[in-house]
Amino acid sequence: MKTIGVVTTGGDAPGMNAAIRAVTRIANWKGLCVLGFERGYEGLITGTFRQMTPRNVGGIIQLGGTILHTARCPEFKTLEGQKKAAKNLHDHNVEGLVVIGGDGSFKGAYELSKICSTQMVGIPATIDNDVYGTDETIGFDTAVNTAVAEIDKIRDTAISHERVFIVEVMGRERGFLASTVGITVGAEIIIAPESKCNLDEIVSIIKQNWRKGKRAGIIVAAEGCGKVTEIAKTIEKNTSAEVRLTILGYVQRGGSPTARSRLLASLFAEKAVEILCESQGNRLVGLENGKITSIPLEESCRKSKPIDTSLLKVNEMLSI
Amino acid sequence: MKTIGVVTTGGDAPGMNAAIRAVTRIANWKGLCVLGFERGYEGLITGTFRQMTPRNVGGIIQLGGTILHTARCPEFKTLEGQKKAAKNLHDHNVEGLVVIGGDGSFKGAYELSKICSTQMVGIPATIDNDVYGTDETIGFDTAVNTAVAEIDKIRDTAISHERVFIVEVMGRERGFLASTVGITVGAEIIIAPESKCNLDEIVSIIKQNWRKGKRAGIIVAAEGCGKVTEIAKTIEKNTSAEVRLTILGYVQRGGSPTARSRLLASLFAEKAVEILCESQGNRLVGLENGKITSIPLEESCRKSKPIDTSLLKVNEMLSI
Amino acid sequence: MKTIGVVTTGGDAPGMNAAIRAVTRIANWKGLCVLGFERGYEGLITGTFRQMTPRNVGGIIQLGGTILHTARCPEFKTLEGQKKAAKNLHDHNVEGLVVIGGDGSFKGAYELSKICSTQMVGIPATIDNDVYGTDETIGFDTAVNTAVAEIDKIRDTAISHERVFIVEVMGRERGFLASTVGITVGAEIIIAPESKCNLDEIVSIIKQNWRKGKRAGIIVAAEGCGKVTEIAKTIEKNTSAEVRLTILGYVQRGGSPTARSRLLASLFAEKAVEILCESQGNRLVGLENGKITSIPLEESCRKSKPIDTSLLKVNEMLSI
Amino acid sequence: MKTIGVVTTGGDAPGMNAAIRAVTRIANWKGLCVLGFERGYEGLITGTFRQMTPRNVGGIIQLGGTILHTARCPEFKTLEGQKKAAKNLHDHNVEGLVVIGGDGSFKGAYELSKICSTQMVGIPATIDNDVYGTDETIGFDTAVNTAVAEIDKIRDTAISHERVFIVEVMGRERGFLASTVGITVGAEIIIAPESKCNLDEIVSIIKQNWRKGKRAGIIVAAEGCGKVTEIAKTIEKNTSAEVRLTILGYVQRGGSPTARSRLLASLFAEKAVEILCESQGNRLVGLENGKITSIPLEESCRKSKPIDTSLLKVNEMLSI
Repeated sequence: MKTIGVVTTGGDAPGMNAAIRAVTRIANWKGLCVLGFERGYEGLITGTFRQMTPRNVGGIIQLGGTILHTARCPEFKTLEGQKKAAKNLHDHNVEGLVVIGGDGSFKGAYELSKICSTQMVGIPATIDNDVYGTDETIGFDTAVNTAVAEIDKIRDTAISHERVFIVEVMGRERGFLASTVGITVGAEIIIAPESKCNLDEIVSIIKQNWRKGKRAGIIVAAEGCGKVTEIAKTIEKNTSAEVRLTILGYVQRGGSPTARSRLLASLFAEKAVEILCESQGNRLVGLENGKITSIPLEESCRKSKPIDTSLLKVNEMLSI
Repeated sequence: MKTIGVVTTGGDAPGMNAAIRAVTRIANWKGLCVLGFERGYEGLITGTFRQMTPRNVGGIIQLGGTILHTARCPEFKTLEGQKKAAKNLHDHNVEGLVVIGGDGSFKGAYELSKICSTQMVGIPATIDNDVYGTDETIGFDTAVNTAVAEIDKIRDTAISHERVFIVEVMGRERGFLASTVGITVGAEIIIAPESKCNLDEIVSIIKQNWRKGKRAGIIVAAEGCGKVTEIAKTIEKNTSAEVRLTILGYVQRGGSPTARSRLLASLFAEKAVEILCESQGNRLVGLENGKITSIPLEESCRKSKPIDTSLLKVNEMLSI
Repeated sequence: MKTIGVVTTGGDAPGMNAAIRAVTRIANWKGLCVLGFERGYEGLITGTFRQMTPRNVGGIIQLGGTILHTARCPEFKTLEGQKKAAKNLHDHNVEGLVVIGGDGSFKGAYELSKICSTQMVGIPATIDNDVYGTDETIGFDTAVNTAVAEIDKIRDTAISHERVFIVEVMGRERGFLASTVGITVGAEIIIAPESKCNLDEIVSIIKQNWRKGKRAGIIVAAEGCGKVTEIAKTIEKNTSAEVRLTILGYVQRGGSPTARSRLLASLFAEKAVEILCESQGNRLVGLENGKITSIPLEESCRKSKPIDTSLLKVNEMLSI
Repeated sequence: MKTIGVVTTGGDAPGMNAAIRAVTRIANWKGLCVLGFERGYEGLITGTFRQMTPRNVGGIIQLGGTILHTARCPEFKTLEGQKKAAKNLHDHNVEGLVVIGGDGSFKGAYELSKICSTQMVGIPATIDNDVYGTDETIGFDTAVNTAVAEIDKIRDTAISHERVFIVEVMGRERGFLASTVGITVGAEIIIAPESKCNLDEIVSIIKQNWRKGKRAGIIVAAEGCGKVTEIAKTIEKNTSAEVRLTILGYVQRGGSPTARSRLLASLFAEKAVEILCESQGNRLVGLENGKITSIPLEESCRKSKPIDTSLLKVNEMLSI
């Protein structure tokens, strides 16, 4: 293998730049030339790339976002688009491609792999942590800490005004972010899409807390639950609590990556380059049981990552 | 003067605790006894207070929120309620009262002063910075920095995805927060309630930026403008820009106070205790032209604080 | 089991409060009474404790330090001292004791267990991460992120002035902190006590970097290396680089715990209470291969935790 | 005026980039061409500069350090060196020069102005805040907040271990940083070079605090005091307190500028460009009594900025 490509696709996640840097430098160390495709799959289709060197990835390990940019690319979902991408990879002798992104990105890479001799290796980077084949994605730890820092601030107002705050965190249809954030901010209640959201039970907990003298409270809800306004109204109607609602929003996607997100990025990149150098086929890099591993890309696309609901149970004990 | 009271009212602001600590310790140093009334004016009406000592205000200078709590108190808006408060102050020999809060709080204190011999001194503490008689309120600098840190994160995503983000900051009907935040995050556009929001002009700026190669952008809007959704739609309809909307919300009200908010709190408190000791009458402490000053409480309630729109003009040059 | 004790000993670590909270609430949920001994082993010897309830551990999950205090206790190293502690535990019917601390703390607990029927369970909490039986200790992730944030700031000056900065991080005789911090700040060189520090090699790397145009640089050194001043002088003497030295110091021990430190604290606490309830004997809780586990306390005291030097090798590739 | 230069000199300070950006954009808006000289006065001597445009100063407002770099330049202290600089400015038709830096930088600019027709305007940027002619320098507010955040962390350990920490902050021979940091972290004692450091008094305060039950404590000392080790030993010898010493060091110089440092940078830049456009002569921009002003450069070099020691007196009351 002489030339590889690297691309960031899907929603940006903190640590993508650390991964770009690590892929570039490790590949370079091993004698490979690295091309950085811009704006996600759009860059593959249009053939827009820049040469990546150890120097032009200097000073980016600590930056959020992605210097290669990312974009949604409807054209890549068509066979037409994929063929253009395959041709560009072929024309520039790109024998391996490192795809840094999430769930949807890997589905795209897998489709592309069917019509293209370039070997695909996925590096999971998304704040949602919803990629099968890894216990943790790049950016997840950063997003969790960002949300925790925000809610630590909101708690000041919650306690001062003795109010209940419902805080909606990201995570799309999954509760990975909500459950980890919830337990680490000391939330009274965590609402994840994977567990039923029982309004009666929520009302009952708020009432109990009131009796215990806990007038302030934090409820962490995943955006996938989709009914925070209804929950707020139900609590206000049925209890003495004053309720406020906050949607954390896009701040969770940015910011300087935590040490852990940077470390994962570096170790995933090393593994990805190794897989390419050893021609192991289309694979997804991951962290499983504390070790850096990989599984077939196809397997990751086919399966859905299960959530560990035991956190929710532990939180019930922690929030008494 | 032997006994004074201290109370925090209205929305909480970072630095209120630093002010409580400073009032307590400086008054104590001068031989005064300090009573801390709880839950804002509600505590005056119900006579709920605790004795404040140098030791029980230790370790709070760095905490957001207010250890005395705060609450809305409709009853205090009635003469009935005010009379109860006046009676409680009289019964506990409270000769001076330090009111830490915002605009509405001082109007309340002024009303109370009409039927009560207790001398009132206001310390302006609100993230909105909309109190006449002071160039800066306790908490404003903290809220600005919190919003700036958030938007620095959002910029990562804005640049990575080449999107325009409209970020709504607090500030109620005024643009103090929006204009200072806007200029310090390097916003492309600032929308303050005090200046007309011209949709055509906004669209024209976004188009110009696009031509200059500036695809990403930040628009900072004050909540008082009230039409961020409309602005987002108009831009998307008339330009090539992808637009996202984020409402920063309650995080701006919490968090550890900045050095400046803590310093103002300490210096305002010293002035407030001095005013009480010298029986200067009902006054509001403030910062004017870099000096700690005071004006009659009545004057602050009567006048509206002008905004310096020159920041908006400077920002036009800075955002080219 | 009806009554258990909890104590924090050794150097403080961020997340100790989260662990105290979790032990208290989970034990309470399971019907146990919890006594919190103060000032580490000193509190066992003097019998100084407070009753821990779900309410008095509220609002502490986000605080650095330990509300139970900690202290060095030479007397506890004597049999005399241990006997006093054993008697106090017996007199207050403390059947199980949760010891939150580091290496030395567990050696103390193991000694105590020899003369005392109280069951000992250790929860590893130290920023040094040097406890056998766990891949990660409470506080380590926080200290790493604190050091990374500091060095991100120092890098600004390093680059602006084109200087080499040697930054000494904590970690006592071990390089866990230095190696994780080094790789995540993008250090040019990492100096860990476990690997030889070759001055010639360091000089050679700095010279190479200079030729590549990398005039600024960060060297992360563990305090256990003990010769940062000598390294600084050698570099200045043998290269064109200007060198500055910074010792990060105690800031690494404090601060609000990261989400990960809080999560570990909560899960370790749950395991510790479970071990006590099931009378599994004197054990140390840990994280191994991504799972919450435990080993005999005696084993942890007897063995030394190996360091994964592969991080240092990866960093060689990353710093080209 | 058609062409101006901009240069950053002396120690770096957070907000220098915001000032570079503002000078460039505002000058550009007014039709001027801007040259950015590199590595401080060294760039003037060697004639090393780059063309500054609104686009190449994009995305830097939030970055610490200076993209133009800075360096010590002994040659510029000689008439020889100054003549080379003057010739380069003349050869490139640089009619005005904005010098962003500290005390020493302005002395250099003033010397240069004597042999050079280029008009000099100084923008004060140093974390030390020791420039005559301005109440606040760019970077000061950031350094204060950085130090405060550090000491807030150290306090966790101070309280947990019930120790006294002496924290040495920067500030060279002046106590601006120490006094503002000291009052805003709630220091028990502040040691500034401008006030006598009475060891007996310090010992007496620590003893009193011990009797009051305040075992933990923070002493903030300016580096210019120069005897923190002696102070530590004296306290340990004469009181029951355990003492630890921490030198904050270079972290205070880096990091993302606070909103206030960014705002000052923007407003100072506007004033500087205005002075050049109006050919007002060699001047220093400043903030006085809350207003943006300017004084002759020569006056700033001749006079020494007085310190407001009233902060130290307020802190005596606040630390009871």
